Amino acid sequence: MAFESKKLINNPNDVVTEFIEGLVETYPGLQYLDGFPEVKVVLRADVVGPKYDKVAVISGGGSGHEPAHAGFVGDGMLTAAICGDIFASPPVASILAGIRAVTGPMGCLLIVKNYTGDRLNFGLAAEEAKSEGYKVEMVIVGDDCALPPPRGIAGRRGLAGTILVHKIAGAAAASGLSLSDVAAEARHACGIVGTMGVALSVCTLPGQPKSDRLGPGKMELGLGIHGEPGAIVADIQPVDLVVSHVLNRILSPETDYVPIKRGSRVVLMINGLGATPVMELMIAAGKAVPILQLEHGLAVVRVYTGSFMTSLDMAGFSISIMKAEQAILQRLDAATKAPHWPVGVDGDHPPAKIPVPVPPSLSTKSDEVVLSRPQQLNQQGRALEVAIEAATMAIINLKDNLNDWDGKVGDGDCGSTMSRGATAIQEDLKKYYPLNDAAETINEIGSSIRRVMGGTSGIIYDIFCKAAYARLKPNNQSDITPLQWADAFEAAIGAVMLYGGAAAGYRTMLDALIPASTVLRERLTIGDDPLDAFLISSDAAIAGAESTKQMEAQAGRSTYVSADILTSVPDPGAMAAASWYHAAAVALKDKFNAGS
Amino acid sequence: MAFESKKLINNPNDVVTEFIEGLVETYPGLQYLDGFPEVKVVLRADVVGPKYDKVAVISGGGSGHEPAHAGFVGDGMLTAAICGDIFASPPVASILAGIRAVTGPMGCLLIVKNYTGDRLNFGLAAEEAKSEGYKVEMVIVGDDCALPPPRGIAGRRGLAGTILVHKIAGAAAASGLSLSDVAAEARHACGIVGTMGVALSVCTLPGQPKSDRLGPGKMELGLGIHGEPGAIVADIQPVDLVVSHVLNRILSPETDYVPIKRGSRVVLMINGLGATPVMELMIAAGKAVPILQLEHGLAVVRVYTGSFMTSLDMAGFSISIMKAEQAILQRLDAATKAPHWPVGVDGDHPPAKIPVPVPPSLSTKSDEVVLSRPQQLNQQGRALEVAIEAATMAIINLKDNLNDWDGKVGDGDCGSTMSRGATAIQEDLKKYYPLNDAAETINEIGSSIRRVMGGTSGIIYDIFCKAAYARLKPNNQSDITPLQWADAFEAAIGAVMLYGGAAAGYRTMLDALIPASTVLRERLTIGDDPLDAFLISSDAAIAGAESTKQMEAQAGRSTYVSADILTSVPDPGAMAAASWYHAAAVALKDKFNAGS
Repeated sequence: MAFESKKLINNPNDVVTEFIEGLVETYPGLQYLDGFPEVKVVLRADVVGPKYDKVAVISGGGSGHEPAHAGFVGDGMLTAAICGDIFASPPVASILAGIRAVTGPMGCLLIVKNYTGDRLNFGLAAEEAKSEGYKVEMVIVGDDCALPPPRGIAGRRGLAGTILVHKIAGAAAASGLSLSDVAAEARHACGIVGTMGVALSVCTLPGQPKSDRLGPGKMELGLGIHGEPGAIVADIQPVDLVVSHVLNRILSPETDYVPIKRGSRVVLMINGLGATPVMELMIAAGKAVPILQLEHGLAVVRVYTGSFMTSLDMAGFSISIMKAEQAILQRLDAATKAPHWPVGVDGDHPPAKIPVPVPPSLSTKSDEVVLSRPQQLNQQGRALEVAIEAATMAIINLKDNLNDWDGKVGDGDCGSTMSRGATAIQEDLKKYYPLNDAAETINEIGSSIRRVMGGTSGIIYDIFCKAAYARLKPNNQSDITPLQWADAFEAAIGAVMLYGGAAAGYRTMLDALIPASTVLRERLTIGDDPLDAFLISSDAAIAGAESTKQMEAQAGRSTYVSADILTSVPDPGAMAAASWYHAAAVALKDKFNAGS
Repeated sequence: MAFESKKLINNPNDVVTEFIEGLVETYPGLQYLDGFPEVKVVLRADVVGPKYDKVAVISGGGSGHEPAHAGFVGDGMLTAAICGDIFASPPVASILAGIRAVTGPMGCLLIVKNYTGDRLNFGLAAEEAKSEGYKVEMVIVGDDCALPPPRGIAGRRGLAGTILVHKIAGAAAASGLSLSDVAAEARHACGIVGTMGVALSVCTLPGQPKSDRLGPGKMELGLGIHGEPGAIVADIQPVDLVVSHVLNRILSPETDYVPIKRGSRVVLMINGLGATPVMELMIAAGKAVPILQLEHGLAVVRVYTGSFMTSLDMAGFSISIMKAEQAILQRLDAATKAPHWPVGVDGDHPPAKIPVPVPPSLSTKSDEVVLSRPQQLNQQGRALEVAIEAATMAIINLKDNLNDWDGKVGDGDCGSTMSRGATAIQEDLKKYYPLNDAAETINEIGSSIRRVMGGTSGIIYDIFCKAAYARLKPNNQSDITPLQWADAFEAAIGAVMLYGGAAAGYRTMLDALIPASTVLRERLTIGDDPLDAFLISSDAAIAGAESTKQMEAQAGRSTYVSADILTSVPDPGAMAAASWYHAAAVALKDKFNAGS
């Protein structure tokens, strides 16, 4: 089966019926009339025409504008939507079937975009329905502001402003008004809305070749929603300028299409034409609001941003401006169950931005707290200094080995990177580590590392330190117990596992640290002297690091290296971790010589 | 300013901040932290961190996935969204600022898609926040089902299933649960959802050239949301087959990614990737539901169709399937103010389709009513017959003139078309017009015309007849008074004006009929004999039709014809209308000879 355009569809002739089937699967509040393929009518599942005690509001037209019109069927908006084929007015029989299905004694209002086919087909259906005894009125929407005021019959095209008319009429009907009152509100709404579109691409009809009418770097201004050419083709401009131009045209005093003067309150709709991402629509909305406020002196009280009235897969958007009279706002804000009417857009705007919060207390380092190395170290402070100096020196001494191993299984810079971190720790230690506060010292080690070690290893060691810090902080900082150190060590390992995604056996630093942590906990639990427990656990770290030779790589560049090479080389990250851990344990044992 | 890709933006470096500004203009319930450009955090305007009495639910990651994540901020879903640059993880400082801004004593849950950068940055921020005294938990979503189970760290990517996890966690938090309970629900949700994508185009980074990785007629299956290549490139297939393939992969018993067995209830999400129109998404939804039901034995209880987690301007969609346990459904159905969570999707499905309604009564013609010419005509029936025969004969006689005039100002077929209608009326008149019922006879004239006359003229004459029919019907059908005829004539003209969009002076049939109607009303009002009034008004019709020579064309092809030609030619439609009207009046006057 050949497809001339790129679309995820089946038979191009079936797109409208298949759209309706999917729509009704998605929204249980909707049903359709079982008259495929000719009769394509979506209606509220909770409305039974002869008994419906409100004015039915019916719209429709050619398809290809989804979610319009069927996506706006729901309590408070449309009662039914009559779907034609792509860009083709629905036949009279469909419209009449829709009218019969949802119209009760209060009658129905037909809201029709100003295209000859729609006017005539809906018009004939309206007259037939009247002859069957229904009360019917019709309102024609022509909100296009792109072209100069036309002579005669054609009139202005109906564009996305129609959606606002749907909402206003639907809310008026839901409030229980009579047909003539609902029609009057809808007609009034038609007179205070203006729309203009801009496109970057031409839409492609299902099964048809893609048009190349618009060349690279070009956009069309003032286009319609059926692929008809725009009023102007121009070079693509920054969206600021595009929005400004479009707003000037809509609000032009020469055409005087919408009765909006400086000081008016307005509603803004940014409508995607089918293939425009939300990001770009929101950018346009964010630009349109200040332009309306500052250049046109208007207060923007509602912004509707989304894809409401599309043109198949066209890239671009239209902008609609409606005068926001109080009665209009009330209709627009009224609740509706129509699934594609935007939510969360009403209510007063608080200040858009709020200050970035400062840390909740000064218990963590901030700019105001100047850390400094204590004049006098207590016993724990001295022990920390000894351990840190030994650990960092071990890494610096192992630099070439680490680079060598890493050259075989990675990118060869593990030693250089780790050594850079170790050197930074040594320097910062002398300058400002608050060694009598164990938790803050560990925190600073993390910061030193991340300042100079880029990439994944830097952030992982920082996470390691931050997790330990968080666990150590509630304790008495000048007397952290061995079990508290073991707790912090486990928390740090846990954080590295959680955020880094590795586990034991993945050929990472964890293969040194996890066995060390396990042994440390065991030895402390059975009552070993803490310095002995540390030293014994550091042997487990070394053994664990060596065992990585037998492991398959699970992460990083090592995954691309053959197993033969891997078996002759330990994981450099694991060796580094074992090295600093072991050096710290040996140094403490030597220095304090306890328990032996 | 040069743009390499076609996007309606300003500086490509500013797209995220400008998106946020537009988002906050659109939704007054949202605010952002005033830390542009580094800190890009969107948060609920109604939440003040230190005082917030629920668990805060925070997500985020690289931008380019709009509306995710910021569009899902709102009561009942996310409390804050941390936005990175396009496809880049946000920095730790942004994440920490977001945590501080919305987290109260109940703590916060971070929901992170499984990408190394996000895990590490959110992880470090989590640890820093913990050290500041916040309760923090993190849940990592990896719902991708496109690739075989990965070894080691990388794990499965986070895709659109993340949105469902957001909703479940947000609803759990809104219900007042503790942090550990909210995290447990979120983790459980992660384990029962699977996703796979299919794309027709590659996304284009703002300011970058468009990639041509995918050739014409090709699609990619199993792609990620950052433009990374898919698992398979294949020829585009009908969407039925694509959906079927994707569902087979998600539900594959070999990978066993989601614990969904035959008989399970499931939730379906069809997620557009940025440039896919609603129509195509709905078609995919409409196909996925029966495939899940019939081929996989699953009950689909909710369908979410829309663009939730996009990839810039990528064309295509992803499908997510989640096991729909009762507790999960309750969370998904819970109310939320998050603006981009779909509405109207819960509730029981009524039958999707209902029968096309029949006309409300048999007062109009339906298949059951066989019309027939009366055996005996009453006086009005005889008059109608005389008038119809004269009127149609006049049109047939005028055929060549009409074609001639139309050849100069239009497409030259006015006479042929009108004559075809007249002939059909003559034939049907003899067969079945119920001449003793004036209203039904007029209605049948309209039907005869539309059966054989295509295009605009056929439907306009049918509207003319239907509007007259609707006005005549309430009257005594065997004795329609002259004023009732005048009323019906005016209603018919009014309908043509309303639906056709023309008015007096537009160079149409109305320029014959409007003067005739005016004069008819005048003469009847002053008490003229009805046959005289009809005849005098028909002179006005002729004069009106002749006067169209002086009119500019306002509609149709005549608008393209020069004024010189137009002044020598009357409007053929007006001449035709004057002709049949005049002939009917003359024939009635001759036949019944009353009043003279």
